[in-house]
Amino acid sequence: MKKSSCFKILAKDKKTKARVGILKVRNKKIETPFFMPVATKTAVKHISSLDLEEMNCKAVISNTFILHLRPGEQLIKELGGISKFMNFKGINVTDSGGFQMYSPSLYIKSDEKGVHFKDPFEKKTIFITPEKDMQIQIDLGSDIAMCLDTMPLLHHSKKDIDLAVNRTTNWAKRCKQHHDKLQEKLKSNQKQLLWGIMQGGIHKDLRKKSAEQLSKIDFDGYSIGGLALGETIEQEMSMVEIQKAIIPENKPCYLMGAGNPVELLEAISRGVDMFDSRFPTQNARHGTILTSEGKLRIFRKEYSKDTRPLDKNCDCFVCKNYTRAYIKYQLTQEEAVGYRLATFHNLYYLMRLMEQARKAIKAGKFLEFKNKIKKIYEKADDSIKK
Amino acid sequence: MKKSSCFKILAKDKKTKARVGILKVRNKKIETPFFMPVATKTAVKHISSLDLEEMNCKAVISNTFILHLRPGEQLIKELGGISKFMNFKGINVTDSGGFQMYSPSLYIKSDEKGVHFKDPFEKKTIFITPEKDMQIQIDLGSDIAMCLDTMPLLHHSKKDIDLAVNRTTNWAKRCKQHHDKLQEKLKSNQKQLLWGIMQGGIHKDLRKKSAEQLSKIDFDGYSIGGLALGETIEQEMSMVEIQKAIIPENKPCYLMGAGNPVELLEAISRGVDMFDSRFPTQNARHGTILTSEGKLRIFRKEYSKDTRPLDKNCDCFVCKNYTRAYIKYQLTQEEAVGYRLATFHNLYYLMRLMEQARKAIKAGKFLEFKNKIKKIYEKADDSIKK
Repeated sequence: MKKSSCFKILAKDKKTKARVGILKVRNKKIETPFFMPVATKTAVKHISSLDLEEMNCKAVISNTFILHLRPGEQLIKELGGISKFMNFKGINVTDSGGFQMYSPSLYIKSDEKGVHFKDPFEKKTIFITPEKDMQIQIDLGSDIAMCLDTMPLLHHSKKDIDLAVNRTTNWAKRCKQHHDKLQEKLKSNQKQLLWGIMQGGIHKDLRKKSAEQLSKIDFDGYSIGGLALGETIEQEMSMVEIQKAIIPENKPCYLMGAGNPVELLEAISRGVDMFDSRFPTQNARHGTILTSEGKLRIFRKEYSKDTRPLDKNCDCFVCKNYTRAYIKYQLTQEEAVGYRLATFHNLYYLMRLMEQARKAIKAGKFLEFKNKIKKIYEKADDSIKK
Repeated sequence: MKKSSCFKILAKDKKTKARVGILKVRNKKIETPFFMPVATKTAVKHISSLDLEEMNCKAVISNTFILHLRPGEQLIKELGGISKFMNFKGINVTDSGGFQMYSPSLYIKSDEKGVHFKDPFEKKTIFITPEKDMQIQIDLGSDIAMCLDTMPLLHHSKKDIDLAVNRTTNWAKRCKQHHDKLQEKLKSNQKQLLWGIMQGGIHKDLRKKSAEQLSKIDFDGYSIGGLALGETIEQEMSMVEIQKAIIPENKPCYLMGAGNPVELLEAISRGVDMFDSRFPTQNARHGTILTSEGKLRIFRKEYSKDTRPLDKNCDCFVCKNYTRAYIKYQLTQEEAVGYRLATFHNLYYLMRLMEQARKAIKAGKFLEFKNKIKKIYEKADDSIKK
């Protein structure tokens, strides 16, 4: 097994497969497991890069295809790359844009060669091949790139999911080859890293096949794609277990699209190291607040006059300065400040949850920590009473 | 002339009528002249009360009628008043809501007794009398209240504007009487202050009459209403001069709705002490940036790759951390972060402009300062070249 130069495991939990590691890329490093807010267009909704720094967030994920459309990778390249463009000192990850195959306004069709997209701004089509996708991500200058994958949905036939697995493997080979070629003259500490993405729906045999095929390619990290799409958490974790057992132990493992606190901890206990999701930001805007006492549905009547902070155990600037009543009112009025305050808090909560998870793993107490958080969230939603 | 207890003039300019004063209300104080961002629903769009503190903003204005609709003054009263509700340490001013007579979705009709509004949330009408308006503002707990006025528009007939002036005076008397009664048991340092609002369109005789009538009532301050509505700046300043000459010299004077830098400085040179406007916030969202070199239209093509800050002479967090190219991209994408960054900068710019104006007045150099700024803004818009 080839040694991974970008990832080092620092601590392993004894009762679970949870581990703490250090992921290094260029001059940046981050402790795993970690959660990445979604900054599709190089900005998290309502949250600036300074806000991310304030909440000790050290990685975000942006979208290659969306940025290719506007402002274009050449502009970002010319201005010094994505990190400089958004003034973010942390790790910039880019997703390939394969996910946009489920955006009816953008997707046309795909074949073995690549994906045909519509450009919604200009009246033309765009053909994205695995090679093209690598070029765009190199130009964007993100620290970690994702392979272009073909993601099936859960309701697709097993035959179609099998085809998607095979195509994803073929594309992964092409991505790796082209990505290596594009960076062959760079020193290893200047290189963008590349993650392979595994698929397979909720079929054990296909998940296994996908993991086996991808593991033969020496990626810097491995992503579990095509989950967090509506399957049960048991189905999701069963797929995670299968693929995690196959990919190299010393490579970082990224469960794409997961952001629910319990989901994160379950995946961490199975050895997953990285996550991203719209969960905390989208839920904040819709009035679901993550707290140390569980989910708080801020739109409920009882919070209209509640002068307590969103979370009494949180020390974020929102909880130190604003009441549930104020945030609820601003959210009901669809005022930007309401979105901002709720979003900041939810992200801060997840950053702290990850920090606590890392601490628990190091202290050999992760299982207890996970069970404690699960118990809180398994109580009826919004169980916080006065 | 009765001494005003809330306002003290500290310095007067010799070449103009500009002055620096201290306005005190409850335990708060602010140096005049100053500009108030608009926080209609107790939040400036995209800007929290902590942001206001960071930009050294010490007063904001909210809307009585809008807050009466939602969340209702009783809720805000129960939670400790508007300042506590929004966690703002500065001075909270409330406008009466007379302006909503130009909101077709809210206004029904008005007569000598008061204004009939629609409640867009419940299927009922709301009758706002001067007395009711005072009660709402007392309940909101703002530091400075405005009388309910009848504001004519510029195109209204002189006869209609005359009627509006007379009605505004009658309502001002009723406001003052009821406001006094509601606070008769309070100590003077606990009291909400009350400003009378003058009208008169762009008719010199009506402006004179309105000022004379209002001056007979001992308000804590006087507002010039019904301007900044599309008249020329010469017409506007001519009306300001007429009314400012009539109202008591030792009372604060507030030009409602003015927010253009040159307009502010012209009014200050005529003795105006307070301003509010959506100008800096709305313009920010529409891509017009206020800078030490004039207006910058960020949507212009030349700024797409411009890595300079919005204003090279500005030390706000936006100018220290983000480029024109990034802010332009986020604004074109209608991303909240773009709105936030542009809005923060524009407000910061105006706060600093007011600070510089106060400094110039104290140093006896206001005329030079005003002329310098005018010269910058009179150059063609967006004259900032590379």
